[in-house]
Amino acid sequence: MKGGAHKVAAPEGAPLGAVRGRALRIALLGCGVVGTQVVRLLTQQSEDLAARVGAPLELVGVAVRELAAPREGVDPALLTTDAAALVERADIVVEMMGGIEPARALMLRAIAAGASVVTANKALLAEDGPTLYAAADAAGVDLYFEAAVAGAIPLVRPVRESLAGDRIRRILGIVNGTTNYVLDQMVTEDLDFDRAVKQAQQLGYAEADPTADVEGFDAAAKAAILASLAFHTRVPLGSVYREGITAITTDDVAWAARTGHVVKLLAIAERTDAGVSVRVHPALVPVGHPLAGVHGAFNAVFIEAEAAGELMFYGRGAGGAPTASAVLGDVVSAARHRVLGGRGPVESSYADLPLLPASAAVTRYQMRLDVADRPGVLAQVAAVLAGHGVSIEAVRQAPRSVAGDPGDHEAAPTADAVAHLIITTHEATDAALAATVAAIAELDSVHRVVSVLRVEGA
Amino acid sequence: MKGGAHKVAAPEGAPLGAVRGRALRIALLGCGVVGTQVVRLLTQQSEDLAARVGAPLELVGVAVRELAAPREGVDPALLTTDAAALVERADIVVEMMGGIEPARALMLRAIAAGASVVTANKALLAEDGPTLYAAADAAGVDLYFEAAVAGAIPLVRPVRESLAGDRIRRILGIVNGTTNYVLDQMVTEDLDFDRAVKQAQQLGYAEADPTADVEGFDAAAKAAILASLAFHTRVPLGSVYREGITAITTDDVAWAARTGHVVKLLAIAERTDAGVSVRVHPALVPVGHPLAGVHGAFNAVFIEAEAAGELMFYGRGAGGAPTASAVLGDVVSAARHRVLGGRGPVESSYADLPLLPASAAVTRYQMRLDVADRPGVLAQVAAVLAGHGVSIEAVRQAPRSVAGDPGDHEAAPTADAVAHLIITTHEATDAALAATVAAIAELDSVHRVVSVLRVEGA
Repeated sequence: MKGGAHKVAAPEGAPLGAVRGRALRIALLGCGVVGTQVVRLLTQQSEDLAARVGAPLELVGVAVRELAAPREGVDPALLTTDAAALVERADIVVEMMGGIEPARALMLRAIAAGASVVTANKALLAEDGPTLYAAADAAGVDLYFEAAVAGAIPLVRPVRESLAGDRIRRILGIVNGTTNYVLDQMVTEDLDFDRAVKQAQQLGYAEADPTADVEGFDAAAKAAILASLAFHTRVPLGSVYREGITAITTDDVAWAARTGHVVKLLAIAERTDAGVSVRVHPALVPVGHPLAGVHGAFNAVFIEAEAAGELMFYGRGAGGAPTASAVLGDVVSAARHRVLGGRGPVESSYADLPLLPASAAVTRYQMRLDVADRPGVLAQVAAVLAGHGVSIEAVRQAPRSVAGDPGDHEAAPTADAVAHLIITTHEATDAALAATVAAIAELDSVHRVVSVLRVEGA
Repeated sequence: MKGGAHKVAAPEGAPLGAVRGRALRIALLGCGVVGTQVVRLLTQQSEDLAARVGAPLELVGVAVRELAAPREGVDPALLTTDAAALVERADIVVEMMGGIEPARALMLRAIAAGASVVTANKALLAEDGPTLYAAADAAGVDLYFEAAVAGAIPLVRPVRESLAGDRIRRILGIVNGTTNYVLDQMVTEDLDFDRAVKQAQQLGYAEADPTADVEGFDAAAKAAILASLAFHTRVPLGSVYREGITAITTDDVAWAARTGHVVKLLAIAERTDAGVSVRVHPALVPVGHPLAGVHGAFNAVFIEAEAAGELMFYGRGAGGAPTASAVLGDVVSAARHRVLGGRGPVESSYADLPLLPASAAVTRYQMRLDVADRPGVLAQVAAVLAGHGVSIEAVRQAPRSVAGDPGDHEAAPTADAVAHLIITTHEATDAALAATVAAIAELDSVHRVVSVLRVEGA
């Protein structure tokens, strides 16, 4: 092990470059967990930011609902309840209020007044992004939203810019930290769903009402935004198929592990010759897949592009400081355009590929069945699959309760012996697979379809 | 599982947006594996590219050394040997020749003539990036180099733009696919170093002369570029500490696994209060770390930023199509600036933090020693560590050859019994750790220091 490299003498920490322009006026709408972190970074990094932008960034106001509540580190003189007036005296408006209104009206007002807008508002972008994109395009201002999809993970910029000369085929994303934490705890701590959610709530990873996360609404909004960016196609939130993780049992998780998978809630956006499929549902991911190693509340987005091949972006999808980091990156980009001219990518022109229903998606199923433990049952089940044109990748037959199996104790052994059948299919349309499962459920020898999960990333 | 989402009718595949400007002239310097892929993408995606840029991209020439060699998919009429003349009639010059000269002279000429430049030339950027950055800044043109650091992985753009409002603390990168493949094969196929390199050569992952990869030169160039971007500091290639993987044995890899680690060649750029440390060396990475799951010829870069926390970017670091994808993304960005005004980030202003020698880096060691198998030896070794102020994290003592241990058969058992001691330290400066190892080697009871590896990412 050789000694050190030569030391290059250099003066410490001179601010970067010269600041050329007048101060750029930044207005903040909303001042919660992320907003206070944005204020902190704007203040602490002011010299570096000014150097990178070529002009100082000046916080001119923070719109809040009530002046009384104290905000750590925020000069009370900057607070105002008149958001409408504030947006008209800003160069860049940072929208952190969330929700549809008044956020939309204020952003449109800011754009009309010539301000650029930075937002983390996934609900609004998923609901009505095209209106905002078109307004920004017409006004010649920037609309940035890196923080809206996966918090601190640079994702919007890579998709819109780095891959602008490539063709994205598929995006598989773990874009909701709460559900990833819950599923991860079910595996590592052997907790059932309810207890894992309770623990996530205690640690601040889940809201008191976890519906938006566990039912997949949050992931669906992000899927809609990602798909629209990746495929230059308007993807209304209502067109995103959505299934949450509330039905996932410890039994599902244990059987996933035995068959070499982990259960993840995935946001999927796929382009085929027929069109674009956008969906959110739990899926079995092979343990060797990079997404399988994403633990806790982390997010990751796996992208398959024609030329680039497989890419993955990993990081914190939520939290005050991480989200503020993404917001500040956008502020710097928008501010540079104010100083140097130019604009960020525009989303107002669309290829508008057809949106496919979830039933058209090509996927694989793993189904677990409680069946009569007698000869010939597997042959019956296999015949139903074959009759629907679905081919079998693997079958596993197990006694209903084996050592180490957490088991599904609802299905107590009856007088007749019960066997457990785990069938993994090859690819078929979701519609064909769903019809196959329905037909299998009708068989006399099949007591119960215990669980059906899609397999992705294989 | 519910039925499909509603289908949204939309016309198929209208080209994106209107094309506003005159055609932008693209010149290609060099036409090897990457260059032909760039030509392919420019041709195949021409409509989409024109829509994203706002003007068509027209390939006006391809500079090659010899006209005779056939280039798949490239119009022979575009070939020229007069690169100097070609760069003066282009809006955007894509430099794919590699090497220092004539690439540098041609890029400076292109910049002087007002062209923007896109390059994947890591050797040149590491050697003389500041000259090129300054020239581009002075001329008001773009200099993009996404493909220079980790092939298809969007990395330069996230570091320069997405994290522009944050502060990067540390970068740990697997930035050389050849060495990652070799190390991975040593683990999964139990091959020794030479056989793993041979296999990599057969598969086209390693050059006939693998020196640039296995000795860490390629990774060092990328580390210098990454560090200069992350810390706004000029990092001469000569200041990067560099150690390759040629000394890594199957024994090292096997013991790494037993102690919960994998061996990776890491490019490390770190910012401390004292300055910036940039180094390339093999390191033990804990199996739970996201970098440990990066297999085969894949690359990944793990970034720790103050506000964003932990991020990782994963993908293909080499290959014609992946690299071309990154190049095209840069071409689109540069072309958009030509059409809409504005400029990409500029690297010509520096904070110029002090560069620290490798000896100042704070790290941990895992050392393996062959020692006399008698009482008191561990106490002696521990005393030396304590005397140097280095504290021990873990000690493991093993018979020299145990079942399943591939063993180090050079050290055949002698008349005296030999034990194997594996010591992992807590953090200390590299200098203190190196001095400690030297002192331990002097002990009579220590037959041999078998291996010393740094531990990172814990």
